Amino acid sequence: MGIGGGLSKLNVAVMGATGMVGQQYMRLLEKHPWFEISILMGKRSAGKKFGEAVEWIGSYDPPTRVKEIVVSEIDPERQAADLFFSCLPSEVAREVEGKFALKFPVVSDTSAYRMETDVPIIIPELNAEHAKIIDRQRRERGWKGFIVTGPNCTTTGLAVALKPLDDAYNVRKVFVTTMQAVSGAGYPGVPSLLIIDNVIPYIKDEEEKVARETKKILGKFQDEKILENDMMVAASCNRVPVIDGHLECVYVETEKKVDVEEAKNILREFRGLPQELKLPSAPEKPIIVREESDRPQPRRDRDSGSVPGMSVVVGRVRRGLDENSLQFTVLSHNTIRGAAGNAILTAELLYKLGYIE
Amino acid sequence: MGIGGGLSKLNVAVMGATGMVGQQYMRLLEKHPWFEISILMGKRSAGKKFGEAVEWIGSYDPPTRVKEIVVSEIDPERQAADLFFSCLPSEVAREVEGKFALKFPVVSDTSAYRMETDVPIIIPELNAEHAKIIDRQRRERGWKGFIVTGPNCTTTGLAVALKPLDDAYNVRKVFVTTMQAVSGAGYPGVPSLLIIDNVIPYIKDEEEKVARETKKILGKFQDEKILENDMMVAASCNRVPVIDGHLECVYVETEKKVDVEEAKNILREFRGLPQELKLPSAPEKPIIVREESDRPQPRRDRDSGSVPGMSVVVGRVRRGLDENSLQFTVLSHNTIRGAAGNAILTAELLYKLGYIE
Amino acid sequence: MGIGGGLSKLNVAVMGATGMVGQQYMRLLEKHPWFEISILMGKRSAGKKFGEAVEWIGSYDPPTRVKEIVVSEIDPERQAADLFFSCLPSEVAREVEGKFALKFPVVSDTSAYRMETDVPIIIPELNAEHAKIIDRQRRERGWKGFIVTGPNCTTTGLAVALKPLDDAYNVRKVFVTTMQAVSGAGYPGVPSLLIIDNVIPYIKDEEEKVARETKKILGKFQDEKILENDMMVAASCNRVPVIDGHLECVYVETEKKVDVEEAKNILREFRGLPQELKLPSAPEKPIIVREESDRPQPRRDRDSGSVPGMSVVVGRVRRGLDENSLQFTVLSHNTIRGAAGNAILTAELLYKLGYIE
Amino acid sequence: MGIGGGLSKLNVAVMGATGMVGQQYMRLLEKHPWFEISILMGKRSAGKKFGEAVEWIGSYDPPTRVKEIVVSEIDPERQAADLFFSCLPSEVAREVEGKFALKFPVVSDTSAYRMETDVPIIIPELNAEHAKIIDRQRRERGWKGFIVTGPNCTTTGLAVALKPLDDAYNVRKVFVTTMQAVSGAGYPGVPSLLIIDNVIPYIKDEEEKVARETKKILGKFQDEKILENDMMVAASCNRVPVIDGHLECVYVETEKKVDVEEAKNILREFRGLPQELKLPSAPEKPIIVREESDRPQPRRDRDSGSVPGMSVVVGRVRRGLDENSLQFTVLSHNTIRGAAGNAILTAELLYKLGYIE
Repeated sequence: MGIGGGLSKLNVAVMGATGMVGQQYMRLLEKHPWFEISILMGKRSAGKKFGEAVEWIGSYDPPTRVKEIVVSEIDPERQAADLFFSCLPSEVAREVEGKFALKFPVVSDTSAYRMETDVPIIIPELNAEHAKIIDRQRRERGWKGFIVTGPNCTTTGLAVALKPLDDAYNVRKVFVTTMQAVSGAGYPGVPSLLIIDNVIPYIKDEEEKVARETKKILGKFQDEKILENDMMVAASCNRVPVIDGHLECVYVETEKKVDVEEAKNILREFRGLPQELKLPSAPEKPIIVREESDRPQPRRDRDSGSVPGMSVVVGRVRRGLDENSLQFTVLSHNTIRGAAGNAILTAELLYKLGYIE
Repeated sequence: MGIGGGLSKLNVAVMGATGMVGQQYMRLLEKHPWFEISILMGKRSAGKKFGEAVEWIGSYDPPTRVKEIVVSEIDPERQAADLFFSCLPSEVAREVEGKFALKFPVVSDTSAYRMETDVPIIIPELNAEHAKIIDRQRRERGWKGFIVTGPNCTTTGLAVALKPLDDAYNVRKVFVTTMQAVSGAGYPGVPSLLIIDNVIPYIKDEEEKVARETKKILGKFQDEKILENDMMVAASCNRVPVIDGHLECVYVETEKKVDVEEAKNILREFRGLPQELKLPSAPEKPIIVREESDRPQPRRDRDSGSVPGMSVVVGRVRRGLDENSLQFTVLSHNTIRGAAGNAILTAELLYKLGYIE
Repeated sequence: MGIGGGLSKLNVAVMGATGMVGQQYMRLLEKHPWFEISILMGKRSAGKKFGEAVEWIGSYDPPTRVKEIVVSEIDPERQAADLFFSCLPSEVAREVEGKFALKFPVVSDTSAYRMETDVPIIIPELNAEHAKIIDRQRRERGWKGFIVTGPNCTTTGLAVALKPLDDAYNVRKVFVTTMQAVSGAGYPGVPSLLIIDNVIPYIKDEEEKVARETKKILGKFQDEKILENDMMVAASCNRVPVIDGHLECVYVETEKKVDVEEAKNILREFRGLPQELKLPSAPEKPIIVREESDRPQPRRDRDSGSVPGMSVVVGRVRRGLDENSLQFTVLSHNTIRGAAGNAILTAELLYKLGYIE
Repeated sequence: MGIGGGLSKLNVAVMGATGMVGQQYMRLLEKHPWFEISILMGKRSAGKKFGEAVEWIGSYDPPTRVKEIVVSEIDPERQAADLFFSCLPSEVAREVEGKFALKFPVVSDTSAYRMETDVPIIIPELNAEHAKIIDRQRRERGWKGFIVTGPNCTTTGLAVALKPLDDAYNVRKVFVTTMQAVSGAGYPGVPSLLIIDNVIPYIKDEEEKVARETKKILGKFQDEKILENDMMVAASCNRVPVIDGHLECVYVETEKKVDVEEAKNILREFRGLPQELKLPSAPEKPIIVREESDRPQPRRDRDSGSVPGMSVVVGRVRRGLDENSLQFTVLSHNTIRGAAGNAILTAELLYKLGYIE
């Protein structure tokens, strides 16, 4: 199925459509030039119109067309689409995504397959080449489709900022403390009784995910394998009373000496394949560097950039305790760049690379 | 002037009485066994009754007796008391505190004199011996009184937690990210427009203070000098939408290998001179160690301990990237242990040691 | 079983012990002079120690003794106590409370029986005499025990403030808009995603409850019947990002002319039977009147009074559009005066009146 | 000076440009088809570039062109523009606006002139005809220019919702309780220490303004006079922890019987002159009526409508205590429809009516 030249769009299905991240897909795909939502799937909502099934929590209304779609059961035997986005709960995702991958391309926000050796975690600007492992995945698993994942929402901003720094200075150790938005916990998620006038200094499994996924995403692709990056990552994850936007304070130790102004330029000028290919959801600048002393801030910077929510915003870039170190603060929109937006950009990349047809 | 045996209490003055920290003194000294507020001083409020002058913001009302005190001008020529607490703005404090110290003991929460080589920053459980520098201070400056300071509110919790760990393992590097309450910025302080649904990733001068003060507080006293501790501290300071309680995520690199369970016990069993002397404001346990995965939390733990707000609460103690490291989260009440409470405890110590009579 | 003179305390059971309101009972009864918790009951927690079963959310820890109590199943056949407090979910309460009432006194925070004609809704300062309907209740239902309820947490503050005004001026119409704390929705209750930087202008069934319950509570007891007060109440209920404390703006139309200063005195001097009997949980003043223009405020005033959380705080008393009207703002602590505290005070009253032995 | 047909835009000046409302003008006029900002004026910022002078607090950056404009002093002798918007502090506005009105059209968000008998408070959909009083104003005051004001931000939403209801049912009494956003207090405005986990039940002078302005706005224009509407308004104003959007619970007593469904339709179908003239800032629907039980909500609905922030959102329309009453909840964006947006729409109207050339 082709795009452009008057041809029709790819039919897209969203699994887990009524959840927090699912709702972002509705908005982000509303006017997408290549993809059109044709199927919505959900366990509890099956049989109802999306507009009635969903407990919509965005500050915009769901698109009218989407509201009318009847949510269908998650059934790999009966459903067919050119592409399946999955934002299912992890416990369900393992089985379901595997079944769909027998026949169809699956791009997943879920953690279920992330750490499988033949499944890539893709941030298109960083490791587009990891997509090549799809070939091995198909061959070894006997799938006609495939599974490609995106990282945990907390990993995303960190990995994007680390990539150009690692290329330039060889990052050895990373100490990161996060201040994460409540939307990262889904809906209903964090009870207000726990978070008003408070910080919760713990998010289950999050610190391990950030450490592991970062090493994989920033790894080399070689001989059909993803070789983990050997940087070490220590994370402390906290929940703060913020709606959207994960803020992270990062301290980096490097092999090579770091010049702060140079590092800022490296971050600022970083571009990836999505920018080169001018993919529809690619922000002009993957990383926005701010010079003000008190930025980035979640409420004010989370929707930055030419594609709102898709740029990572870095600020407070400054030297660390010695010349082989750097400190900075990074913000990324957790449900856009950290979930639905990154998955859509990944799907655009895979389409351009020929993995989705 | 003696205490106990039926003798009267020490007359105490508070300079900067109507500010945020000043208000804490009113409450903490209300029923103090040794000290009694007799003078309140303030620049803008002079001439008015405290109850009318103060823009009181606590969730309790000011003590009736205190409300009736007429605030007097800050005038070292005319005011006399056994002890002066100062929580003046830094720019005013430099001159005023110096003048009072000519004749009187001054215990200050302000940064003005903190980094003077002959002025100690005292956290009574950590470095009571630094008080001895008062002798040199008096001799060299020709003061009959003296100035003793307390640390910045952000330094306090960190320093308390580091002390026993440094003693046991020799701390080399500290990476700390703070999530600080709005009360730390005083009143009116942080505009609500900036902090609702937001985090501000910057607090002016705070990171430098934390690094410098920690090294001084944890330094050795030798030959009438405070020799700075040679640990290195890198801080990232953030403001979060929390009323009281500074939360800090700490990563520590040590010279000696760390055993996590042992480290917890070391923290738990740490005691200082205030506990030994049973000072009125000394908490039974300077450090409370919690085992739950999601503690300490500002709203739930800031008033912990036998003297509410005076214990530092540590949680999430866990190993770092290797055996010579440790991670934990620490909370301290910024206007109590981090300001007024620590100053009162310091005054109690100095009284017991004979520096205040 | 007697109290005082060295005799033992009444054995008290709490049904629904692990919920939000249940947790308040643990704290409020910890040092109660008459009542001692001996049984905790809960559906999902049965078999576990309370300390392990409860998702404790207070800013204090549960009492050690209570933590060790093994939660038992809710089973009227096997449980015996001198008094049963119930804070069960409404759907469970109907059946369970009825069964316990066959043999035992039940004091309930739940709505299940509130509107039954032979069951009183008691706020001890307002309508102690409604307790007499217990005699009819026992006779007609054949119960040895009884059920007495407390009002919805939103009704409480309003009803307390209206009572003395109605006695003095004959209230005809009440227009009330509430701003309610998230703790009123229980735990997990209101998702933080819905309430940060937001107000939710609706609480299910709340407006009807406020209108109905107020009329019943302020009704006359006559010929073994509670005759509803004929004032009319129109309520608009909103949820705001506040932890504890329901704030309500009230406009009252009266039959008689109102003098504002007189009305304030009437509120200020209001006392009820609990004050006369000096019940342990009775606040010295049921109503605190504040004169400042900007009080009461939830965070600063919710724990006011001689028994924290048991006084209702009224402020901004001012005339309405004409002389037969009055406006004011009222605050009450929703989980204390609005739930557990009011129930305990009611039990104290019923004990003194001889209904509990 | 004409617009369209290739002619240039009107030169517009903003007085008080660096304040909260001033910043909204920058954004709203950025791509305005008729108006172009050519002058920015401010007291403290004079001489600096706007981009350097302003403490910008929006979640978008100021337009580049505007950042470069050098803020000039407020000096009616030297400044000339086709139109002056004023969002000066009230105490300054009185003198300054009067001086500019000698020569120029002034559209003001400030309260200084609002209650002058010959100055209209205009909400273009409601009382466009009040603009005619400009003729009298000019004649009597000898001004070549004029002053037209917009209402207080809290009055706006209420007045818009009341207008069609008053036309249909003759509103007699209005009881309104507001929950107002912190942006309504300007910058720095409400200290975070006062509003986190809290509500402040008082806003200085606000209740009087709401009552007075509503009666004037909804008054008749007759014989060159604005005859106040005789409805009576009782308001209770509260500040809540919300960034933008004033929410108001309204109870209305009417002369005629109200049918709820009919009332909803009347609100929904209400249109004014701006819609007829298709003014650039006129929302398609001045009033959006929502049927969900829990709407409008500030965070989710404040940017509703075809021109974000310009529609008033009404929900929870329901009957009151009798047939001659109605209850509803109304939301309006306080810095857009309640300030800058309404002033711009007013200027568009005045331009179309020929008062600005």
